[in-house]
Amino acid sequence: MKRYRNGEIWDFEQQVSGENGGGQKLILGLDGGTTNTVCICMPIIPFTPNHHHSPPVYARAVAGCSNHNSVGETAARETLEQVMAEALSKSGSTRTAVRAVCLAVSGVNHPTDQQRILDWLRDIFPSDVEFFVENDSVAALASGTMGKLHGCVLIAGTGTIAYGYTEDGREARASGAGPILGDWGSGYGIAAKALTAVIRAYDGRGPQTLLTRTILHELQYSSPDELIGWTYADPSWARIATLVPVVVSCAEAGDQVANDILLHAVQELASSVKAVVHRLGLCGKDGNDSFPLVMVGGVLEANRRWDIGKEVISCIAKDFPGMLPIRPKVEPAVGAALLAWNYLIEQSQQDHSEADYN
Amino acid sequence: MKRYRNGEIWDFEQQVSGENGGGQKLILGLDGGTTNTVCICMPIIPFTPNHHHSPPVYARAVAGCSNHNSVGETAARETLEQVMAEALSKSGSTRTAVRAVCLAVSGVNHPTDQQRILDWLRDIFPSDVEFFVENDSVAALASGTMGKLHGCVLIAGTGTIAYGYTEDGREARASGAGPILGDWGSGYGIAAKALTAVIRAYDGRGPQTLLTRTILHELQYSSPDELIGWTYADPSWARIATLVPVVVSCAEAGDQVANDILLHAVQELASSVKAVVHRLGLCGKDGNDSFPLVMVGGVLEANRRWDIGKEVISCIAKDFPGMLPIRPKVEPAVGAALLAWNYLIEQSQQDHSEADYN
Repeated sequence: MKRYRNGEIWDFEQQVSGENGGGQKLILGLDGGTTNTVCICMPIIPFTPNHHHSPPVYARAVAGCSNHNSVGETAARETLEQVMAEALSKSGSTRTAVRAVCLAVSGVNHPTDQQRILDWLRDIFPSDVEFFVENDSVAALASGTMGKLHGCVLIAGTGTIAYGYTEDGREARASGAGPILGDWGSGYGIAAKALTAVIRAYDGRGPQTLLTRTILHELQYSSPDELIGWTYADPSWARIATLVPVVVSCAEAGDQVANDILLHAVQELASSVKAVVHRLGLCGKDGNDSFPLVMVGGVLEANRRWDIGKEVISCIAKDFPGMLPIRPKVEPAVGAALLAWNYLIEQSQQDHSEADYN
Repeated sequence: MKRYRNGEIWDFEQQVSGENGGGQKLILGLDGGTTNTVCICMPIIPFTPNHHHSPPVYARAVAGCSNHNSVGETAARETLEQVMAEALSKSGSTRTAVRAVCLAVSGVNHPTDQQRILDWLRDIFPSDVEFFVENDSVAALASGTMGKLHGCVLIAGTGTIAYGYTEDGREARASGAGPILGDWGSGYGIAAKALTAVIRAYDGRGPQTLLTRTILHELQYSSPDELIGWTYADPSWARIATLVPVVVSCAEAGDQVANDILLHAVQELASSVKAVVHRLGLCGKDGNDSFPLVMVGGVLEANRRWDIGKEVISCIAKDFPGMLPIRPKVEPAVGAALLAWNYLIEQSQQDHSEADYN
């Protein structure tokens, strides 16, 4: 095993005695996003993953961005290695206890991305460790399906994407192309439409709306033309998306413009899911087959009286009555670990049946 | 008069002999945009500004961006001073020959912006020079009205804005707030909607469109998902707006999606003008009063078979039959000079009538 060239990341292993009470084998599950990266350490002990019992978690570590498109490959790898070491250290274990690692990282889109990370992981861990490298949406799906890669996940936070998987390994996505390319159901999309509505009302190009007063109050401005400066001073998508709760409040207060913006977002989000379900045939030939739809992200989880997530579900249910909506009870890093767990279980069952046969 | 602190901008004046053949008085007209800045030098000789005779122009100089929001105040002033000096130098004149300066610069939105530039101009030119400091849309209007500040101007290039003025000095604007705030009739808006349509078709969220093949061919890509990288590699509005001719070609070839995008842009552009006309009452109480509508910018001037400018005009004409569309024959810098010219003529007529009266 290598030592990280720029630091002493794995030095703690020399202080660990007896490997967490006698060789308990572990899985590392990692969810790496553009905002932060979470790694959890799960023991391989007998339990049945389901929605009533949380999977056991020994330790949890958090770090910053690990998307190589955002921070570059070197910084991304350093973050990933550090957060894994911290999770192991916190659980009183070393790399020799690790049985499997599942890394679900945003920015992993092509087999070449996967291969580069796999090669790098093999250099860090013992040779008998199993590795899984996936896009972070896979962890989100697995957090709702308890590790099973089947169904569709809809993520709607600052951005939005729909991802789907079939049991025979096919996958498809929709949206996730950013605001210029029309992700209008996202938090950014909702907020940008609200800002536009304020400018239109001010110009006399659109109806008056409660959004004007509420957004100006939120940002502590007195005139809509000041919004131009605010918007372009730092056009970060996440900063603009922070206005979503204001839009929801206005819709709840009966404002028609805000209500229409949310209804439009619901249509957009539902259409992403429908496109994925159709392409993969998740609904079966008659459209009635059962499949899980995992809902993740601030826009879907806000749990307000005007409930965007609930509306998206009822919009999709009209087309696909067999759809089973799931709001995950565990975080995506746990989903990543469960994905590896499922694989190990299946493999050991296969080994047993082969042993029975022989 | 001051000498510019960082250079020898006005040194050429020492070489000029006899002031362009005997004290010919001049007007400097300047159009300063985000892409470039143009200054022209116009002699004050008898002529009647109209659409059949171009105004006389002694010299023309071009420089880069002079929007203080983009390049900072120091760089903007240096650009403005240099381009004025070059125009004067080319016409064989010095600052003592200047009777009036009209600076129409993008980024001048508030009286404080105007005042700062006025103070700075007074420091450069002799004390008897008349100054006019305006937003660059004023020069665009004046280029169509031959210097008269009355009517509405619609500018649609990469961005879009509608500006209007009444004869009694009131003004109003609509749009011009950038793409996040919904300038969807702009070149950027048209191209972004086309890119969105390609992604939607690829996802299975929208109808198939000729835009896919045509845009991929234009950018030399083979798959729509490569557009994500292209779009965000450099999200400059102008770069994206270069796709407008492709959208027009697809609409001309009968593609419904491209056609709908252009129709939507027409509605948006017309609504900006209508909002300004309504707020200023340019159409009179019965809606039938005559007023000029000056049309400027690549989106309106493309002169294709699918003619966006023509469609905008017919859309506005339905509401305001007295609207007189004008496509300027001179450039905005000449419009700026004509604005100063008009003012000087009016003033001299007033002086004469006062002299007659006394």
